[in-house]
Amino acid sequence: MRSPLLQLFQHQASGGVRERLCATLRLAIGRRHLHAGQQLPSSRQLAQDLSLSRVTVEAAYGQLESEGYLRRETGRGTFVAITMPATSSPPARLASARFSARGELLLATGGCQDPPFPHAFAAGSPELRAFPHETWRRLSGNVQRSLGSAAMGYGDPCGYLPLRSAIADYLALSRGVACQPEQVIILTSSQQALQLLAMMFVDPGDEVWMEEPGYPGARSALLAAGARLRGIAVDAEGAVPAAGSAKLMYLTPSHHYPTGVTLSLPRRLAWLEWAQRNRSWLIEDDYDSEFHYDERPIPALQGVDRHQRVITLGTFSKSLFPSLRLAWMVVPPALITPVGRARSVLDGHSALLPQAITAAFMQQGHFASHLRLMRQLYRSRRDLLLAQISQRLTPWLTPLASAGGLQLTVSVQQNEARLTAQAAQHGLLLPRLSPLYAGPDRQQGWILGFAALTPDEIVAGCDKLERLLRES
Amino acid sequence: MRSPLLQLFQHQASGGVRERLCATLRLAIGRRHLHAGQQLPSSRQLAQDLSLSRVTVEAAYGQLESEGYLRRETGRGTFVAITMPATSSPPARLASARFSARGELLLATGGCQDPPFPHAFAAGSPELRAFPHETWRRLSGNVQRSLGSAAMGYGDPCGYLPLRSAIADYLALSRGVACQPEQVIILTSSQQALQLLAMMFVDPGDEVWMEEPGYPGARSALLAAGARLRGIAVDAEGAVPAAGSAKLMYLTPSHHYPTGVTLSLPRRLAWLEWAQRNRSWLIEDDYDSEFHYDERPIPALQGVDRHQRVITLGTFSKSLFPSLRLAWMVVPPALITPVGRARSVLDGHSALLPQAITAAFMQQGHFASHLRLMRQLYRSRRDLLLAQISQRLTPWLTPLASAGGLQLTVSVQQNEARLTAQAAQHGLLLPRLSPLYAGPDRQQGWILGFAALTPDEIVAGCDKLERLLRES
Repeated sequence: MRSPLLQLFQHQASGGVRERLCATLRLAIGRRHLHAGQQLPSSRQLAQDLSLSRVTVEAAYGQLESEGYLRRETGRGTFVAITMPATSSPPARLASARFSARGELLLATGGCQDPPFPHAFAAGSPELRAFPHETWRRLSGNVQRSLGSAAMGYGDPCGYLPLRSAIADYLALSRGVACQPEQVIILTSSQQALQLLAMMFVDPGDEVWMEEPGYPGARSALLAAGARLRGIAVDAEGAVPAAGSAKLMYLTPSHHYPTGVTLSLPRRLAWLEWAQRNRSWLIEDDYDSEFHYDERPIPALQGVDRHQRVITLGTFSKSLFPSLRLAWMVVPPALITPVGRARSVLDGHSALLPQAITAAFMQQGHFASHLRLMRQLYRSRRDLLLAQISQRLTPWLTPLASAGGLQLTVSVQQNEARLTAQAAQHGLLLPRLSPLYAGPDRQQGWILGFAALTPDEIVAGCDKLERLLRES
Repeated sequence: MRSPLLQLFQHQASGGVRERLCATLRLAIGRRHLHAGQQLPSSRQLAQDLSLSRVTVEAAYGQLESEGYLRRETGRGTFVAITMPATSSPPARLASARFSARGELLLATGGCQDPPFPHAFAAGSPELRAFPHETWRRLSGNVQRSLGSAAMGYGDPCGYLPLRSAIADYLALSRGVACQPEQVIILTSSQQALQLLAMMFVDPGDEVWMEEPGYPGARSALLAAGARLRGIAVDAEGAVPAAGSAKLMYLTPSHHYPTGVTLSLPRRLAWLEWAQRNRSWLIEDDYDSEFHYDERPIPALQGVDRHQRVITLGTFSKSLFPSLRLAWMVVPPALITPVGRARSVLDGHSALLPQAITAAFMQQGHFASHLRLMRQLYRSRRDLLLAQISQRLTPWLTPLASAGGLQLTVSVQQNEARLTAQAAQHGLLLPRLSPLYAGPDRQQGWILGFAALTPDEIVAGCDKLERLLRES
C-alpha cells in the first residue's frame, strides 16, 4: 500500500508538500486503493517512506481527519474512515441528460453564433482596428483612479445613472426617442434584453409575431420561451400589418434585418395602432441604426408612440465594440420597476467600470466623433462592395436595400447552400439568407458583412466570390 | 401656426440648427398642431420667421419628406403628410401590464437585492478598500495594450480559455475539483448560472430541493422557473438526506448559507448517492469558500463525485470584486456543449477584457496572495466581531457556526422584525435571518456582514446594536 501512495504522491505536481500529501491520500481513498477501517502507516513511517518531515505527515493526517477521510485513535493509530462508493456507470451514459421542456426548446434553437473577426464576409462585426484605443485606455485609467473602489461594488440592476442619462440624451438627439434617464435600462447585450422580454411576456403557446425573414437571436429567445411564432411578411415599406393579435411583435424598423428595408411612417402608425388596440408590445430592435448612409435615418418608433406600447433596444456592440457587453432598452415608465427586478434575478447588474468609461466617452463627445468617422468609413466600404458587385458579380448577385448597417444583403439566383459550402472550402464565409426564414417561401442569398473589412479585404473577397460564381 | 412653431423651436435646446428644426416639426405633428394636408410656410417665409438660412429650412423639409412627415409638390408647396393619432389612454393605465405566468412568478420573488457598501452590517460584501488597485490597473493597461482589438470582438459563450485554465488549476489545488479547463464555463454571475440551470433543468411544477433556510438568489431563480420547492432541513452536519426524488438539489456544502455549517463527508457521499440513484443534479454553490479561517476547508463535493452528477458554482464577486461580473460553473463533460449553447441564447458571452485581466492576475500569483491577505484580514475582523458579541451582546445574540465566509449569522431571542426596523432608524442595517426560511419553522436572527468593515466600523456597529438591545 505504501508503494501506490508513493507513486500517487510523486504525481502530485503542484502545491505545498502538505497539500500534495493530502491530495494523495484523498485520491487513494477516492480510487478505492484504501478502504474504511484500513490502518495507515504511522506518521513516522510514512514520513520516512516519502522523505517528508513527520510534522508534515501529522498535519496532513490531522487535516484529513477534520475532512472526515481519516479517523485517529490515540494509542492505536490512523485509520481510513470511509469507503468510497464504486463507479457504477461510465460517464458516457450521462449523454442522456434530462433537460426541461424549456431547456430542450432552447437547445433546439442551436444557440446564437457570433461572427469570427475579421473575415470576409462575416456579418455583424464593426471595424475594431480603427477604434480609438488610446482614448479608451486613457478614460479607463481616469475612471479607475477617480472612482476607485466605488466602481467595484454591487450596482443598480437598472444600470449606472450617468450612462443612462448619456444614452437618453443621445437617443433624444439622434433617434428622436423621448424618455427620462430612468427609462433606460442597461443590460449586457440585446440578446439578454430579448431573453428578459421573452420571459416576462411570453408563456408557452402564446402567439408572438416577428418579421419574416427575421433576426435569429430574437427567434431563439422567443422559441426558447415557448412562443408560437408567426412570420409577418416584409415588403418595400417594411413589415405588412396583419389581422389578429399577439402578445408581442418583434420589429427592426430602422433597417429590417436582414433585408435592410426601412419601415415607412404610415406602417409605423399602423403597427402602433395595432399594439394599442391589442394591448400588445412592440419590440423595436434599433440595432446598428447609427450607421445610415444615404439620408438621415427615420427616428425611432418609440418617438411617435403615444400609448407606451414600444420597448426600444439598442447596443454598443456595433457602435463601440462587442466585448464591451453593454446594451440598453428604453421601457415605458410602468415597466421600469418590473424590468429592474427581473434583471436582478437574471444576473444582478452590469459591470460598473465599462458603464462609467462609456458614459465618459459619450459625455466628452468621443462617441459622436467616433460614430461620424465610422459612418464615413463604412459608407466608403459599402460603396466599394456595391461597385464590385455591379462591376463583376452581376447578374449573379442582386443587392437588396443598402441604406445602412454593417452588412449588405444580396439575393443569388443559384443554389445558395451549395455555393456557400464551396466558398467555405476556399476560406470564404458567406452568411446564408434563407435560414433566416421560418416559412417555406425563402429567398436565397447572403448577408455580406463589409464594415470590418479593409478595401483590400473586400476586393480579395470579391475575387474569390467571382471565381466561385464563374466556375459554378 | 408660425408662432407655436417658433415657440417649439426655441425650446429645442441641443443639436445643430437643421436638427432642431426637424425636431420642432416632428413635435408639432406629433402634438397634432399640424394635420395631414395642411400647407407649411414656404422655406423662404419660415427661414425669415425663425431667423434661419433658407438652405437649412430646405434641408429640414427634405429630410422630413424622406421620413414621411411631409409631402412636397413642385410649384404648389410643402404639406403635412400625416395626422398623428390622438392619445386615447393616459399612461397610468399601463400599470395593468400583462406579464406571462413566468414573468409574474419572477416578479413575485421580489428580485435580488445586492448589499450597499460599506455599511454595518450589510452581508456579502468583500473589503474593496484593501484591493490591489495599482496592480489591477497595471495589468489592465498591459492586457489592453497586448491584446488590442483582439480583446474587443465577440467571444466564446463558454469563456476565455486562459481564464478557464487558470480557474481549473486554482480549483484543483485549493478545492480538490477535478476538471479539464473546457469544463469551466464562464458566466456573468452565479445568479446567471442559477438562472441558466433552472431554465435548463426545471419545468413548471417540477420538484426541486434546497436547504432550509436557504440562499434567496437560488430560491428566486428556481421559483421563477416554476419549481415546486421543498426545503431540506440542515443540522450540525449540513443538509439531512431525505426520501424521495427531485430534478435537482441546491446545496452550499462548504459553508451552508446562511448558518455556516459545513456538510460532513458522510453526508456528501449520501447526497452523491441520492443524485446518482435519482439521476438528479446537485448544484454545489461553492460561494466564498475561499474564506475559511479555523481549519482548511473540506474540498468541493465535485472532487468526490464519481458519477458526474455535480455542477459546482463559484464567483469572483467575493474574492475579487462584485462589479467584475465574472463567475463560473464546472460542469460534467456531457453538459459543456448544451450549457454553452444555452448561454449564447441568454446573453452571448462574457466581456473578454476582464476575463483576460483576471487570468493574468491569477497566473502571476496575485490572486493567491490577495486571498491570503484577505483571509488574514477577514479572520481578524470575524474574531473582533465574535469578541464584541461575547463581551457585550451576550446573551441577546448567539453566533452560529463561524468557520468562514464574509458574514456571521447570529440567532436572537427577541423580535427580529421589530429590532431590525428600529436599527434601520438608527442607520444600522441588520440583514434578517427568518425570511431565508420558506417554511413556518423559522429561527430569528441576523446575518452580520463583517468582511467589508474596518475594526472601528465593527465596534461602532456593535455600539449601536448594544444600545438597541439594552433599550428594547
